[in-house]
Amino acid sequence: MALQVQPYKGARDFYPEDKRLQKYIFGKLREVCESFGYEEYDAPILEPTELYLSKGNQEIIDEQTYTFQDRGGRSVTIRTEMTPTVSRMVAGRRQELAYPVRWYSIPNLWRYERMQRGRLREFWQLNADIFGVDGVEADHEIILLADRILRSYGAKPDMYSIHVNSRVLTEHLFRKYLLLSETQEQTLVRLIDRIHKMEKDSFLAQADAVLTPTQREDGTLDKLMELMQVKRLNDLPESVMNLPCILALKRLDDLLIESRVTNVKFDITLMRGFDYYTDIVFEVFDEHPENNRSMFGGGRYDGLVGMFGVEPVPTVGFGMGDVTLQNFLEAHELIPRLVPETDAYVVLLGDNLYEKAQPILNYFRDEGLRLAVDSTNRKLDKQIKTAVKKGIEHVIFIGDAELADERYKLKNLVSGLEDQHGRERIIAMLRDSRRTHGVPSVSDPALDDDFDA
Amino acid sequence: MALQVQPYKGARDFYPEDKRLQKYIFGKLREVCESFGYEEYDAPILEPTELYLSKGNQEIIDEQTYTFQDRGGRSVTIRTEMTPTVSRMVAGRRQELAYPVRWYSIPNLWRYERMQRGRLREFWQLNADIFGVDGVEADHEIILLADRILRSYGAKPDMYSIHVNSRVLTEHLFRKYLLLSETQEQTLVRLIDRIHKMEKDSFLAQADAVLTPTQREDGTLDKLMELMQVKRLNDLPESVMNLPCILALKRLDDLLIESRVTNVKFDITLMRGFDYYTDIVFEVFDEHPENNRSMFGGGRYDGLVGMFGVEPVPTVGFGMGDVTLQNFLEAHELIPRLVPETDAYVVLLGDNLYEKAQPILNYFRDEGLRLAVDSTNRKLDKQIKTAVKKGIEHVIFIGDAELADERYKLKNLVSGLEDQHGRERIIAMLRDSRRTHGVPSVSDPALDDDFDA
Repeated sequence: MALQVQPYKGARDFYPEDKRLQKYIFGKLREVCESFGYEEYDAPILEPTELYLSKGNQEIIDEQTYTFQDRGGRSVTIRTEMTPTVSRMVAGRRQELAYPVRWYSIPNLWRYERMQRGRLREFWQLNADIFGVDGVEADHEIILLADRILRSYGAKPDMYSIHVNSRVLTEHLFRKYLLLSETQEQTLVRLIDRIHKMEKDSFLAQADAVLTPTQREDGTLDKLMELMQVKRLNDLPESVMNLPCILALKRLDDLLIESRVTNVKFDITLMRGFDYYTDIVFEVFDEHPENNRSMFGGGRYDGLVGMFGVEPVPTVGFGMGDVTLQNFLEAHELIPRLVPETDAYVVLLGDNLYEKAQPILNYFRDEGLRLAVDSTNRKLDKQIKTAVKKGIEHVIFIGDAELADERYKLKNLVSGLEDQHGRERIIAMLRDSRRTHGVPSVSDPALDDDFDA
Repeated sequence: MALQVQPYKGARDFYPEDKRLQKYIFGKLREVCESFGYEEYDAPILEPTELYLSKGNQEIIDEQTYTFQDRGGRSVTIRTEMTPTVSRMVAGRRQELAYPVRWYSIPNLWRYERMQRGRLREFWQLNADIFGVDGVEADHEIILLADRILRSYGAKPDMYSIHVNSRVLTEHLFRKYLLLSETQEQTLVRLIDRIHKMEKDSFLAQADAVLTPTQREDGTLDKLMELMQVKRLNDLPESVMNLPCILALKRLDDLLIESRVTNVKFDITLMRGFDYYTDIVFEVFDEHPENNRSMFGGGRYDGLVGMFGVEPVPTVGFGMGDVTLQNFLEAHELIPRLVPETDAYVVLLGDNLYEKAQPILNYFRDEGLRLAVDSTNRKLDKQIKTAVKKGIEHVIFIGDAELADERYKLKNLVSGLEDQHGRERIIAMLRDSRRTHGVPSVSDPALDDDFDA
């Protein structure tokens, strides 16, 4: 029986054209992270399962991860997120590191889940974190970094919006302003986390069910619903206006404006799924009418490093998945035309040319040219059609006469222009053309009339 | 109980300084592969177990891989090598691809094995393959590519040697020259594959045990041992000298010399472990006296793509592991001093400077500078010491006076030189210095006398 050619379900093969797009996308991630002084790190894709159990989520481990026993009887999990790993690594060098520590990584992650748009079982996720800064400057920098990443692809501020909230504020509002218990707060936080996926009546009924009869009589549900309508910090109840968390949110807003990040909204309904956030959280939404949804987010999580038996380290970070990012770029038509890295396809004019061409090929490559040589000994038109099919813009022709004259024909398959040049000129021309790549076309009439070999 | 900070056994954390080395090593791999027109691809780290069973090696699956059942009852394996995967991908697009196809990848692979020098459970491996070329030109190109990769790190030809053999020749010698059966051939091939790890007597005894009494009488063992001594093609028995496989090996040698690959040796004992090789094979050995061993290899495997129910495709490729490569570079002192990507550490001179500095930081970053800002509000000496500890060469100082004058102090922590400059000059200086990075030192006396803030 023949083997299957499909990849494992929920995962992707990256053929060169797919990989090229991934390299473009990851290249920008790296460039922008490094422009803020973030250094890349990495870690094994397998982690001891304990690392994920720390949050007490046995159910998630059982149902949403790839977890198995290794031959030594140890339970291992294919990593589902990078935050536990990076916390482990910082804890491992808690004393030696020079703070603030700025780290990023683009790990491959796996989750065992039902496939839907923007969600595969396998994905990549940029993780960028700053460790060791207590102040809101760290929150500002992380949000600014996320903003600059989207802008680096050519995104305009009206294509996305950045929603900001504070866990500390949420807790204050639920406990001190609405006078709810901790359990009630937790239930409502989880409910509000899903508010945009529910009918209003359903939300009201479920929220009401959380309340005690006395709270119902006091009109707590109305007060809650009023709060949920608040769109600006200044519309919050008077009694919270001087809390440190409000002052921090205001300063964050000022700092972002100073850095020309203009599409930021206070969003009181923003809860974020993970339990580890401790203060300011944010989420970035796609504003495209057909793709309008949360893309990614992050926030402050000051407690995680401390779970490894060392002194805690204040931390702010975010994760940005490759699939949602690519959907965003596609929806807004922000993906440029990408071409192979190969500068030229080398067509050999006759037998035994492969051997004779080696010295000049060596020379060209030593000078930095990227050359694919046709070593099939086929007819010329077949060789040229291969170059066209590969999307390579230039062809260099090498034959006995060319080697004797030390002048080679360089043909541009996009413009159809061709001419004989010395080797230095060819090197200069191909280097120049890297900036202005075109994609050759098989239907180009210039292709057919030259070679009837 | 606190969580463990160590990574999973046999796998590595890559802290930024480790990742920087990996990026340097992988960067060269990508650069050289692309200079030969190879395009990068990738595939999921999980594969259906069937993919590896095709070679009938249930034992290897059971004992040397991470294999488990997913929740859908499907057996999956964390990939142990890339060759089955790339064959699957080529088979999946057998008709559409433009041959010759040149692909490379640097996958993360896992094998469940006992740890020893150069062998971890987790590693990376460059895989480069050319599909669709029957002739020895493909073998030549793959060996040349491997050679150019080592040279790209500064390796000299006397640091390594390239051993070449031919499966077709081996088969002919065993079957037609020594007159052995197919089973005897297979047993001896496996034995010779381990010849350099055995005592000579042990080898002789085991080889002798394979033979029949008649073969013993005919002196077959002596003939075998004589063959094993052959170091040059021309010393082979007269009767094989005109075989096509010998002519191919000779032409390969000529081609390699034409490309200035001078450290190639015919090695009749070279067998390669994998069963899928069909013709010429090669292996690269480290010639360092303390690290003398096989580093990596490859060869022609024309049969694999055909296992997916499509017409076979002639293929030559090799795999090069990151751990052995790094050991080689270390043994020969070929690893350069690497510094962080950050161009400068920004020290803020006083309160509220973080906000005021945003416009100039924006400007610098828009111009391509990579800047880490100290947002901790600490004393100056602490901020500078952080830059030193991070190995960042330059510090930019920003205070109220600097912002008013639009001139900023730039200090080189290596030379100790400092001066005030306008922003364009700072951009130009930092761009220039990327080529000549130094590593700052805490003991630099120039560090201490400036700032007693």
